[in-house]
Amino acid sequence: MERVFNFSAGPSTMPIEVLERAQKELVNYGEAGMSVMEMSHRSKDYQEIIDRAEGTLREVMNIPDDYKVLFLQGGGSTQFAMIPMNFMHKSKKACYINTGAWTKKSIKEAKLFGDVKVVGTSEDKNFAYIPKTTRADFDQDADYAYICQNNTIFGTRYTKDSLPDVGNVPLISDLSSNILSEEVNVSDYAMIFAGAQKNVGMAGVTICIIKDSFLENTNDDITTMLKYSTHVAKGSMFNTPPTYAIYIAGLMFEWVKNQGGVKELERRNNEKADLLYGFIDASDMYTGTVATEDRSLMNVTFVTGDADLDAKFIAEAKEQGMVNLKGHRSVGGIRASIYNAMPLEGVQKLVNFMKEFEKNNR
Amino acid sequence: MERVFNFSAGPSTMPIEVLERAQKELVNYGEAGMSVMEMSHRSKDYQEIIDRAEGTLREVMNIPDDYKVLFLQGGGSTQFAMIPMNFMHKSKKACYINTGAWTKKSIKEAKLFGDVKVVGTSEDKNFAYIPKTTRADFDQDADYAYICQNNTIFGTRYTKDSLPDVGNVPLISDLSSNILSEEVNVSDYAMIFAGAQKNVGMAGVTICIIKDSFLENTNDDITTMLKYSTHVAKGSMFNTPPTYAIYIAGLMFEWVKNQGGVKELERRNNEKADLLYGFIDASDMYTGTVATEDRSLMNVTFVTGDADLDAKFIAEAKEQGMVNLKGHRSVGGIRASIYNAMPLEGVQKLVNFMKEFEKNNR
Repeated sequence: MERVFNFSAGPSTMPIEVLERAQKELVNYGEAGMSVMEMSHRSKDYQEIIDRAEGTLREVMNIPDDYKVLFLQGGGSTQFAMIPMNFMHKSKKACYINTGAWTKKSIKEAKLFGDVKVVGTSEDKNFAYIPKTTRADFDQDADYAYICQNNTIFGTRYTKDSLPDVGNVPLISDLSSNILSEEVNVSDYAMIFAGAQKNVGMAGVTICIIKDSFLENTNDDITTMLKYSTHVAKGSMFNTPPTYAIYIAGLMFEWVKNQGGVKELERRNNEKADLLYGFIDASDMYTGTVATEDRSLMNVTFVTGDADLDAKFIAEAKEQGMVNLKGHRSVGGIRASIYNAMPLEGVQKLVNFMKEFEKNNR
Repeated sequence: MERVFNFSAGPSTMPIEVLERAQKELVNYGEAGMSVMEMSHRSKDYQEIIDRAEGTLREVMNIPDDYKVLFLQGGGSTQFAMIPMNFMHKSKKACYINTGAWTKKSIKEAKLFGDVKVVGTSEDKNFAYIPKTTRADFDQDADYAYICQNNTIFGTRYTKDSLPDVGNVPLISDLSSNILSEEVNVSDYAMIFAGAQKNVGMAGVTICIIKDSFLENTNDDITTMLKYSTHVAKGSMFNTPPTYAIYIAGLMFEWVKNQGGVKELERRNNEKADLLYGFIDASDMYTGTVATEDRSLMNVTFVTGDADLDAKFIAEAKEQGMVNLKGHRSVGGIRASIYNAMPLEGVQKLVNFMKEFEKNNR
C-alpha cells in the first residue's frame, strides 16, 4: 500500500524519516541488546534517551533555564484538571478565554476547583474568531489566565504577537496542536502544555513546560500523581513514564532541529497555509470558515456550502490518497490539518484536487 | 549487538516475535498507508485495532461479559488514587493488605479519600511473606478490599487459590506484575488492574477490568478524567488514548493466545521458576529472600549473604549478556524477573552462570 497524505487532526502524520528510524531501531536500540520498549526506565540507556529528548526540546524551543520540562500521561484532558488543582491556590480565581471545545472542557474542570471568570468568548459565532480582550478584562489577582493557542476543531489561533495582554497574571497556554509549528517566546508564559499527537509524535505523552516561580506555591492537598511537584521532584520518573512515547518525541525534536529548527518549519508552514488559504480565497466554490486574521497555520477549515458536496469531496479525495479531510461534526465541511510533517507536496496535491473538483462540480 | 537476556522488573523483556511484527508494521500498517502511530483514534482502522485487543484479552483471560475492559493512562500509580476516589462512596471505608511498596503507596492515596483499615501486613519482616488473614478481618460494610497480587520488589504473590477470604466485600487486585502469567478467575474480583510494562508490552497503558455492578454507584463529584464512568461511556476513547501502546498490548495478547494461552504460559512459568528456585534451595551460596509458600512466579529474589559478592555477581552476569539482575534497594541482593517473555533458555543460562559463579567464589 502506497503512503497516503494524512490530513488527520490528531493523531496525525509523522515524518517518514522518523518512522523509518524508529523502525530500524525497534528490535535493538544501539548497543543495548534490546528494544527501547523493553528498557528499564531506571537504566543508563533510557536516562540518556529522556535527557536527550528534553535537551533537544529546550534547544529548539529556546526554553529558559528557569522553566521545568515534564513528560506526563493523560493527555491535555488531564491537564485541564491538574492546572486548577495545582494552581488555583491563592485567590482561587482564574480567567479563561473560551475559543472552542477544548477551552470549554478546561473551564468545566476548573469550575470544580474555584471561580472561573470567562473574560472572552467567540461562542456567538461558533468559535469562528478569536475574541478581543484587553488587560482590564483580567482580574490582576487571578491565579492564572488560560488560553488555547490553536483551536484544532475550529481552525483559529493566537500567534506570539497576538497573545492577550493579561498584565501580571501568569499565562497558561494549551499548545497541543501548534507546538513547534511556529516560534513562541516561552518567557511569555507561566506554563505551556501540549499533547504529543500532533507535532510531537505518538499519543500517550504530554509535554508540560512550567516556570519555576509559578511552581513554588502549588496546592499540596491533592493526590500524588496529579501534583506537578511529584513529577518535578523525580524528573518525570516518579513512576514508570511512557518510555517509548518519550523516545519517539525525542526523535521528533531531533527532526525539527535537523530541518533547520522551528523558524524554518514556521516558514514552510506559512508557505503551505498561504497556498491553501490563497486558493480558497480565490475560488468560487470554497469558503474558509473563520476570520481571516485568526486563521490557524495547522488546521485549515472550509466548506463548499453544500453538505452533500462536502461529503463527495471527502470521498473523492480519499480515493486519490488524501485521507481524514472530514471536518469536525461541530463545524462540518472540510478540515485539512497540515502539521509540521505534512510536506508541501501534500498541500499541492490537495489544491490540484480542489481545482479539479471545482471544475467537475460547478 | 546480540540480544541480551533482560531480567528487568519493568519495563521488561518482550517476545522477539512481537517486536519483529511491530517493526515490520511500523511504517505502514496493512492497507492503511500509514503507521499505527499516525492513525486517528476515530478511524475505522484504529477502532478495529482496539476492538481486537480487547477481544483477545477477553478470550485469553476468560473475562465474563458483565465486566468492562478499559485502556487508561497514568500507570498503576494513578489507579491508586482513582480507586478510592471512585469507589469509597458508601461506608467510605476500605480494607487493605500491606504487602510492600506498592500497597503502601495505594494506602497513602486512599487515606486522602476515606478510612483505610490495614487488615494484614508483613512489614515486620520487610514484606518477605504474605500475611494470613481471615474473613473476620474484613469489615463487611467496607466499600472494597484491596491487595497487590504479585509484589515485584519483594518477590511474593497470591495465587488464585490463596486469595484472602474477604466474604462479600468487593475485591480489587493489582495484577501489574503477574497478569497473564497464571490463570485467575476474573469473577473472584470486583476489579483488576495492571500497568502494561511487564506482561502487556510497553509502558503507557493500564488495563482495568471492572465488574458492571461495582461500577454502578461510583462517585460523580470528581474530575472527569479520573472517573471510570467517563471512560466506560466512551469505550476508553473519551480523549485520545495511548493508541500505539494499545496496539502493542493487542500484539502481546495475540502472542499469549498463540503460545497456547495463559494455561500454557503458567506451565512454562512454573517450569522456569522451579528450575531457578530449585537451584537456589540446593545451593550453599544462594538464599531466597521470601517464605517458600509465597514465592512469586515472576520475580525471584535471592542473596549471597555478602553485598560485595552480590555486586560481583550482577557485574559478571552482565558481561555474559544477562542484564538488570540487581535487586531493588529495599531488598538488596539479586532479583531475576522472569516474565512471560523470558524463555526457559534465559533461566537455564542464568542457572549455569550461578553454578560457575558459586564454584569460582566459594
